[in-house]
Amino acid sequence: MYELARRKGEEVTVVEVGGVRIGEGFTMIAGPCAIEDELQMETVARGLASAGAALLRGGAYKPRTSPYSFQGLGDRGVELIAAVSRRHAIPAVVEALSVEQLPLLAKNVGMIQIGARSMQNFVLVAAAARTGLPILLKRGPAATLDELLFAAEYALLEGNPNVVLCERGIRGFDDQTRNLFDLAGALRLKELTHLPVIVDPSHATGRRSLIAPLVAASAAAGLDGAMVEVHPEPARSRSDAEQAIDLAEFSQLMARIGCGPSSKVAVARGR
Amino acid sequence: MYELARRKGEEVTVVEVGGVRIGEGFTMIAGPCAIEDELQMETVARGLASAGAALLRGGAYKPRTSPYSFQGLGDRGVELIAAVSRRHAIPAVVEALSVEQLPLLAKNVGMIQIGARSMQNFVLVAAAARTGLPILLKRGPAATLDELLFAAEYALLEGNPNVVLCERGIRGFDDQTRNLFDLAGALRLKELTHLPVIVDPSHATGRRSLIAPLVAASAAAGLDGAMVEVHPEPARSRSDAEQAIDLAEFSQLMARIGCGPSSKVAVARGR
Amino acid sequence: MYELARRKGEEVTVVEVGGVRIGEGFTMIAGPCAIEDELQMETVARGLASAGAALLRGGAYKPRTSPYSFQGLGDRGVELIAAVSRRHAIPAVVEALSVEQLPLLAKNVGMIQIGARSMQNFVLVAAAARTGLPILLKRGPAATLDELLFAAEYALLEGNPNVVLCERGIRGFDDQTRNLFDLAGALRLKELTHLPVIVDPSHATGRRSLIAPLVAASAAAGLDGAMVEVHPEPARSRSDAEQAIDLAEFSQLMARIGCGPSSKVAVARGR
Amino acid sequence: MYELARRKGEEVTVVEVGGVRIGEGFTMIAGPCAIEDELQMETVARGLASAGAALLRGGAYKPRTSPYSFQGLGDRGVELIAAVSRRHAIPAVVEALSVEQLPLLAKNVGMIQIGARSMQNFVLVAAAARTGLPILLKRGPAATLDELLFAAEYALLEGNPNVVLCERGIRGFDDQTRNLFDLAGALRLKELTHLPVIVDPSHATGRRSLIAPLVAASAAAGLDGAMVEVHPEPARSRSDAEQAIDLAEFSQLMARIGCGPSSKVAVARGR
Repeated sequence: MYELARRKGEEVTVVEVGGVRIGEGFTMIAGPCAIEDELQMETVARGLASAGAALLRGGAYKPRTSPYSFQGLGDRGVELIAAVSRRHAIPAVVEALSVEQLPLLAKNVGMIQIGARSMQNFVLVAAAARTGLPILLKRGPAATLDELLFAAEYALLEGNPNVVLCERGIRGFDDQTRNLFDLAGALRLKELTHLPVIVDPSHATGRRSLIAPLVAASAAAGLDGAMVEVHPEPARSRSDAEQAIDLAEFSQLMARIGCGPSSKVAVARGR
Repeated sequence: MYELARRKGEEVTVVEVGGVRIGEGFTMIAGPCAIEDELQMETVARGLASAGAALLRGGAYKPRTSPYSFQGLGDRGVELIAAVSRRHAIPAVVEALSVEQLPLLAKNVGMIQIGARSMQNFVLVAAAARTGLPILLKRGPAATLDELLFAAEYALLEGNPNVVLCERGIRGFDDQTRNLFDLAGALRLKELTHLPVIVDPSHATGRRSLIAPLVAASAAAGLDGAMVEVHPEPARSRSDAEQAIDLAEFSQLMARIGCGPSSKVAVARGR
Repeated sequence: MYELARRKGEEVTVVEVGGVRIGEGFTMIAGPCAIEDELQMETVARGLASAGAALLRGGAYKPRTSPYSFQGLGDRGVELIAAVSRRHAIPAVVEALSVEQLPLLAKNVGMIQIGARSMQNFVLVAAAARTGLPILLKRGPAATLDELLFAAEYALLEGNPNVVLCERGIRGFDDQTRNLFDLAGALRLKELTHLPVIVDPSHATGRRSLIAPLVAASAAAGLDGAMVEVHPEPARSRSDAEQAIDLAEFSQLMARIGCGPSSKVAVARGR
Repeated sequence: MYELARRKGEEVTVVEVGGVRIGEGFTMIAGPCAIEDELQMETVARGLASAGAALLRGGAYKPRTSPYSFQGLGDRGVELIAAVSRRHAIPAVVEALSVEQLPLLAKNVGMIQIGARSMQNFVLVAAAARTGLPILLKRGPAATLDELLFAAEYALLEGNPNVVLCERGIRGFDDQTRNLFDLAGALRLKELTHLPVIVDPSHATGRRSLIAPLVAASAAAGLDGAMVEVHPEPARSRSDAEQAIDLAEFSQLMARIGCGPSSKVAVARGR
């Protein structure tokens, strides 16, 4: 049994990332799939910060199915997101693919993401936890809830209590959606663990039109937040263009869930 | 292509069941998995009507995995639900398992349900449609959205336009939930068709505790309604006891989604 | 528990169909997906009989996903297959979709098939069993082995012990094959039940090139037979053209598994 | 498209591991899930070599779902398997979990395994390929065939052409088997790529009784080999005891597929 991860009663863990408290209210994490260039990041960071996003996501090291796809800007991407993150006072979340990338990330970002493909890369999970930074651990596409919680246990055992779990869609049989968004699984997770649970409807569905309703659904159901892909010009995105919304759509989404720039979410950012 | 079922533009179909208009607002259908006896049905019908449920569900012919499980009261069950349905002015929804059951149902209920196991029993789907009654068509556990829409097309081709689709969970790999609730699929359905789409979180999850948050999620996401299992004493239910809520929990659920006895949902019932 | 279907020891059931003993050796069932016309059926029946097939399959009532697809010749199809079946002394297997079709089938065929979509149409399963004919019960695309065995139990409870189970692929996530062929499940079935278990690699994979190797695999693994789609001219087939082999390929397949016209399989047919 | 991995015609790749040629005949890889101690390894290596196994597998670094399960002997495990491998002239296959483990493995084993959980750990895949050793790449439990081939492409792009693919079961919905053994997928793989394709029925099914029939099936279907878990005393195995066979069962299996110590498989080992 995952002794550290399992829920013992009513008590829940709040994970703090640069003043943002995940586990209190509904936390919005937003940003592009991949960090592409300075203008893109400056535009998106400014827009998201003013729209009330709590955290800025962006991929520097991209785990792409095909070796011929854009693999991300690497270390330079980390520097780009770090710069806009500081300028706009919005902490950054960046995925690590290997242990070697951790030192640079630890200096520059607020939270380290372990992606779905790496959920059971326990060497990486433990090393990321040892940086002391909060960890965003995404559920693998074939992982049971127990397997996800055992993966979290690998991080917790390193003495780092700051782990946030993320449902991002599991493998399904109908290609109408890219993956199968397991909202009930995310809710069940909250019964099994004291850790915060958020969702990623962008990767879960691969469809721009479904992001806002699924974020609204997740907030209404009582989950702790959502991570959505936002790109200044989704059509020009270098990866996953189908599943990103633009800044105007993001603002509408924030209004739909009652989270504008002056609302609780913004407050949660400590502004 | 499912020419009759597919969405052609902004226009959507509203299906009327005894004054209840499914497709306008959020419609709550509730009742026990199986009709057991008169007291149970009187208690639940009175409670649900006063709590603002729009339609009363109840199984008379039960498609049970095991031949040794309770198979329902059969024709007598139809008479029982018909009596309380009239007494409390709440239209009944009952599942048909075979063509022979249709005439009795057509005389006594407001809507005929085609269950998940029968979704591709096209002989039954077409015969049910020919009764003229509205049809509640549940998605099979391995059915793609296209397959569900083609099944609806079999009904629509009989000249009956009143078909409501219901997502009730597809087969998943993690037994933490009975099935895998495909909320994103239900939302995608509404993009593909003009027919109303509702959800059944009781069968989808098999967990009482997840029903209310998933109904809230479905309402927030913009779906057309939900069907939930309600039993006066869930622990004494003769089938699917794990997934039914009691009348007090149902009232709390109605309040959570802003649908009390005097709200829009009640209005939608034509009272 | 499925008391009648479960295995009690070493004893296994042999199901006899017009002299063919399913459960002894490896039984080949072959024929077109749909019965199309007299010439097609005469050609295929003569070819299959001379190549050593034990049983002739052919669909008269076709459960097609789309109502706009060819739905089979109906009663006339039954008469066509019955004629060639008698002429070439090869018993016929035909699927029933509804109770009304059973009397005609009972008079004309050797075995009634319950298709994957109808596995849990227990009204139909029981009625088919009451005809006294052997039943070929196909596993539904989302059915567990237990669910399949409980469905068989519905037939066995009618006093008909002659039930053959068929694995035909379950729903998978990779469209490289039409379904996911669960060979291990078929083998596990034989540990759970005394009933014969065969496979249908045509529907399982939807790929002509995979039929022969999967039949060879199933024979080597110790299963009881296979059902394959054979069409005189697959390219002109009115349904499922991708998954049928022609008569020459069928003869090669029979040779590959060591079952020619003069072999044990032919003997099993009682010639 | 995976340009290097895709099949261009009839030509297939034969991967040589210490004199064993994978891709010619049917290659048996066998050994315990985890390396436990010297006696275990000496017993199993001697038994397997004399029974005609071509390669010896054994886990030194174990990727266990739970951090509280036995994690393997680590570097000492590599030394143990290397010693018995040399003594009995049977090349060893050991899984790598991280880049740091590669130098020691490169000096001591004949082939590096990339496990199912690491299939899309492209940093590791590429680094393993750069050692120059042959790579055994296992399919992830939610991976499509295309995704597996793209992962292989990451290895091939490093200039190492010696990649063997392994189907080890994908995630299924019926816990009668641990995973869902996708034999048809393995066969389809061979149509898509020129690389050898083997199977792992131990992990695929988690059931000792199904290993031999599935190996026989895979050989009959034309695949290139199998990897099976063999333990001197399965009941005392420190991991995955349910899915290991003992040495006597292994010898019977070799006889069943026509591969004894003096047969083609042994010859393939270059003895």
